[in-house]
Amino acid sequence: MENFVFQNQTRIVFGKGTEAETGRETAAHARRVLLHYGGGSIRVSGLYDRVCASLHGAGVEFVELGGVQPNPRLSLVREGIRLCREKKLEMVLAVGGGSVIDSAKAIAIGVPWAGDVWDFYLKTAAPRESLPVGVVLTLPAAGSESSNSSVITNEQGLYKKDAGGECMRPRFAIMNPQLSFTLPPFQTACGAADIMAHVMERYFTRVRGVDFTDRMCEAVLRTIIDNVPVALAKPDDYDARAQIMWAGTIAHNDLLGTGRIGDWATHGIEHEVSGIYDVAHGAGLAVLFPAWMTHVYGNDVARFARFAVRVWGVEPRFDAPERAAREGIERTRAFFHAIGLPTTLKELGVPADRFDEMAGKATEKGLLGSFARLGRADVVTVYRLAR
Amino acid sequence: MENFVFQNQTRIVFGKGTEAETGRETAAHARRVLLHYGGGSIRVSGLYDRVCASLHGAGVEFVELGGVQPNPRLSLVREGIRLCREKKLEMVLAVGGGSVIDSAKAIAIGVPWAGDVWDFYLKTAAPRESLPVGVVLTLPAAGSESSNSSVITNEQGLYKKDAGGECMRPRFAIMNPQLSFTLPPFQTACGAADIMAHVMERYFTRVRGVDFTDRMCEAVLRTIIDNVPVALAKPDDYDARAQIMWAGTIAHNDLLGTGRIGDWATHGIEHEVSGIYDVAHGAGLAVLFPAWMTHVYGNDVARFARFAVRVWGVEPRFDAPERAAREGIERTRAFFHAIGLPTTLKELGVPADRFDEMAGKATEKGLLGSFARLGRADVVTVYRLAR
Repeated sequence: MENFVFQNQTRIVFGKGTEAETGRETAAHARRVLLHYGGGSIRVSGLYDRVCASLHGAGVEFVELGGVQPNPRLSLVREGIRLCREKKLEMVLAVGGGSVIDSAKAIAIGVPWAGDVWDFYLKTAAPRESLPVGVVLTLPAAGSESSNSSVITNEQGLYKKDAGGECMRPRFAIMNPQLSFTLPPFQTACGAADIMAHVMERYFTRVRGVDFTDRMCEAVLRTIIDNVPVALAKPDDYDARAQIMWAGTIAHNDLLGTGRIGDWATHGIEHEVSGIYDVAHGAGLAVLFPAWMTHVYGNDVARFARFAVRVWGVEPRFDAPERAAREGIERTRAFFHAIGLPTTLKELGVPADRFDEMAGKATEKGLLGSFARLGRADVVTVYRLAR
Repeated sequence: MENFVFQNQTRIVFGKGTEAETGRETAAHARRVLLHYGGGSIRVSGLYDRVCASLHGAGVEFVELGGVQPNPRLSLVREGIRLCREKKLEMVLAVGGGSVIDSAKAIAIGVPWAGDVWDFYLKTAAPRESLPVGVVLTLPAAGSESSNSSVITNEQGLYKKDAGGECMRPRFAIMNPQLSFTLPPFQTACGAADIMAHVMERYFTRVRGVDFTDRMCEAVLRTIIDNVPVALAKPDDYDARAQIMWAGTIAHNDLLGTGRIGDWATHGIEHEVSGIYDVAHGAGLAVLFPAWMTHVYGNDVARFARFAVRVWGVEPRFDAPERAAREGIERTRAFFHAIGLPTTLKELGVPADRFDEMAGKATEKGLLGSFARLGRADVVTVYRLAR
């Protein structure tokens, strides 16, 4: 087990009707905020009105900036930074899913920074200061509501990059599982894949002696596997939605990575796909994770066999660990298929003609991953396995 | 699942040699601190010298107060409060296990409070302000290094009471598993029982739809069950000690209780025993938990059967859930016995003559528990089952 430092200050306000607390939670940090959101769904659902009423009730003034798209864009981040500076706003309140929150985080670190906010994503600067960020979560998936990072797409060159720093963790996250009742089934499924990917990136490690976090990872995976089919069959099943939402936060708040070294190659490989083709991040991960697994499981068959047995209930055959390992990969792929996700890049609408270009971009800073170290040719192989 | 608010700000600095960070972590909060500890073991081990050197190196001045006993005493807390006020100390640094940390927390809330610190334990006042508390943990057991509570024994009347409040969470906890290598086997085992009890108090709930936290609870229990025998057989097995230490923190940092209503009757029943007889808290819990289980499992046989299957690997016999439930209880008792803990009050040196008096004290504020509501007669029954 590796040494680690872990601290997560996000205040989680979880449960039915908790969006009514938005004003009170926000007022604890600021009186003038940027209200940041995506498209029209929060207006249709009435959430927009309830959040505004709660802010008004707490005496919080706000300026609005909607229009965040999936794979959030740098241009809108720049617009948000300009607005915050011009209107002297003290906080960014994100109402939405991971894209909105990531965009809010980017704005929040951009405001006090004298340089260009993209510096943080190019890693030529590290964020040390941020406006406070608050969240009203609508979509369990990215875990951004309690994570220390943000992913933004720069439209110029279609680069999708991440920035991270402890100052980026939201101060609070209001999480009402009822808000996820109306998600389209495809978004629920993409969220599940994203959550599972966050856990699997940490689970497949070369670090030994991490039994406790192994078991915590397995707990999150089993929770998602058990509850997502329930939520798809009965979208207003509160308890199923609640398990998914809370597990989704824990999947990516850094607890599960304590003492481990995560892999994260698949995220890098996927970012190049969704940077160019604008596919849903979760769908991209569902396609690419089993391909990555197929390429690398030989590096530690025992770990993949354990994954198969503990997560998927595969019979523990000690005489045939490789068979168990491969069965675990197949079960992973079959689960994604069963919940309505694509299993090939072709289904995602991603042709094979730019694999080498994407692999080049993914590895331009060096080898990817830690469980296995992947170069450009390996990444092309993963794309081909997912074809 | 119940609505909840969860926030835990304790900064965990975990791993080999991390006591060298004590000065730096402390200096982030204060320049003049009370160094609080128990007996001579930290001097024998050299930890005392390393902590002092780290504090000196960071320019932190300190006043010492040692002598904390197991089941920490109110009189020493009062002495600590007096010292902090007289010497204008700004922080309490606890070096030790749960007793030292609980004593430190009591001092820290007592200093800014105009009334008597015992008010907080009588619940006639709630702690709203505290000096910062820092921890160098030597014994994985109580989880106090990241919890929001403290248990203190008032020698006058032998009352053992708890106080709680969010301001009481330590600011940082330095956790080096190597420091637990030299624990006597009995203390390692008592710690294991305490950790398991913290989880089981939360696990046995009447709240439905808590699948995710059920699984997290099971992960902690399995981790302890697997790793404690390893640590007993090989006291310097770093990875086993590390799993136990980190699982012990998570067991009681309130994450596992999110969305649930815990029971906590067994802690109340045990506190009366250790308040009078000064037995080790973990040993008391090891004796009383199986007795409590035996008395209450009929309230939800399915949950106890699940516990047996998921935690102890009992065969899932759907035609005989009660048999599985009882087998889970027997396995719990057998595990405590196997790691060297007593299984009867008699072995603990607790005679039967004051059962009714202790049951009266335990229930003087009303019925105990939530999974089952226990009155005085029920508590006597639990003591008798543990006789």
